[in-house]
Amino acid sequence: MIKQTEILLAACTRGFHLITNEVMSQIEPLPSEGLLHLFIKHTSAGLAINENADPSVRVDFEGFFNRLVPEGLPFLTHTIEGSDDMPAHVKAVLSGASVTIPISGSKLNLGTWQGIYLCEFRNYGGRRKLVATVYF
Amino acid sequence: MIKQTEILLAACTRGFHLITNEVMSQIEPLPSEGLLHLFIKHTSAGLAINENADPSVRVDFEGFFNRLVPEGLPFLTHTIEGSDDMPAHVKAVLSGASVTIPISGSKLNLGTWQGIYLCEFRNYGGRRKLVATVYF
Amino acid sequence: MIKQTEILLAACTRGFHLITNEVMSQIEPLPSEGLLHLFIKHTSAGLAINENADPSVRVDFEGFFNRLVPEGLPFLTHTIEGSDDMPAHVKAVLSGASVTIPISGSKLNLGTWQGIYLCEFRNYGGRRKLVATVYF
Repeated sequence: MIKQTEILLAACTRGFHLITNEVMSQIEPLPSEGLLHLFIKHTSAGLAINENADPSVRVDFEGFFNRLVPEGLPFLTHTIEGSDDMPAHVKAVLSGASVTIPISGSKLNLGTWQGIYLCEFRNYGGRRKLVATVYF
Repeated sequence: MIKQTEILLAACTRGFHLITNEVMSQIEPLPSEGLLHLFIKHTSAGLAINENADPSVRVDFEGFFNRLVPEGLPFLTHTIEGSDDMPAHVKAVLSGASVTIPISGSKLNLGTWQGIYLCEFRNYGGRRKLVATVYF
Repeated sequence: MIKQTEILLAACTRGFHLITNEVMSQIEPLPSEGLLHLFIKHTSAGLAINENADPSVRVDFEGFFNRLVPEGLPFLTHTIEGSDDMPAHVKAVLSGASVTIPISGSKLNLGTWQGIYLCEFRNYGGRRKLVATVYF
């Protein structure tokens, strides 16, 4: 069985954001056992799973990703959409466009410290669309 | 329900290549709702989802990935298969071996600008095998 | 149909480790066709798929990941849990928290050279918990 929902997230500033609650509030109650697949319909933002507690972790994610994929490198050819654009595409591939999470006992079976991240790589990305697919 | 197909891609030059049409032409018509999982059976090429329009994006992906994972670093021990080999393994983990895409209304529910990439990290990778699994 | 199992891995040293056999020995016989989803319930270790033969590949993965995400960078703010902690979070996003592998003919349909990696990014990560979900 499959249940699908489109989700429109609130706009986020550039950086890494915990969206577990925002996602869960927009989908129907989970089945007892299965998988939740979340897919982002954009090429300059990503989804990931990481630490849900100390906000300093999300700050350092932004620092590390900027160090991994800097803006303004001399070899770039795709520069027409701004200096944050092409690096955002690369970061989106590094983080990934989807996450899949087990559902057990009608809850997401995440570890204690895990949450779902929206990785917003554009300076002004606007509202991002997700597709949530629950299969059970 | 599950439907599986093995796909043999045409050989690609080193770099990032749009394969959405090549993949879709080799699998059966999609069900109304579900998920498509694509898996690459190789360790020096990857799959990703990113921008399907301007080819300069794919050029810069190659530049960025080479900057992230350069060839010829002095600490390398796995050098017997050529200088492009070990970096290709690392890049394959960074991009990932599979993508999962929602199916809605009997189509891939991709964003307007999204396409499926074959990330070919070897100089001469040859034809690459995928497994396509549709579940619905 | 869905079958879920929690798996507790043996503790691993920091680095990249082949766990295909350890995982398969802890789940029930596979169905004829389907998908295996493995999810790691931690934020400083990851899962990946890569080369299962020459151990020097795994050695160089450790070297490359340390080069990509070094310890002790001056911009870090999340330093309270040790110098290996924040880099481990970033590496975990780069590798990913889950892998999904096709099942065909009651076996994992991996390429000849592919195996499942536990990517242990902490110096002392301890035993790691996975959730295995088979759907068919």
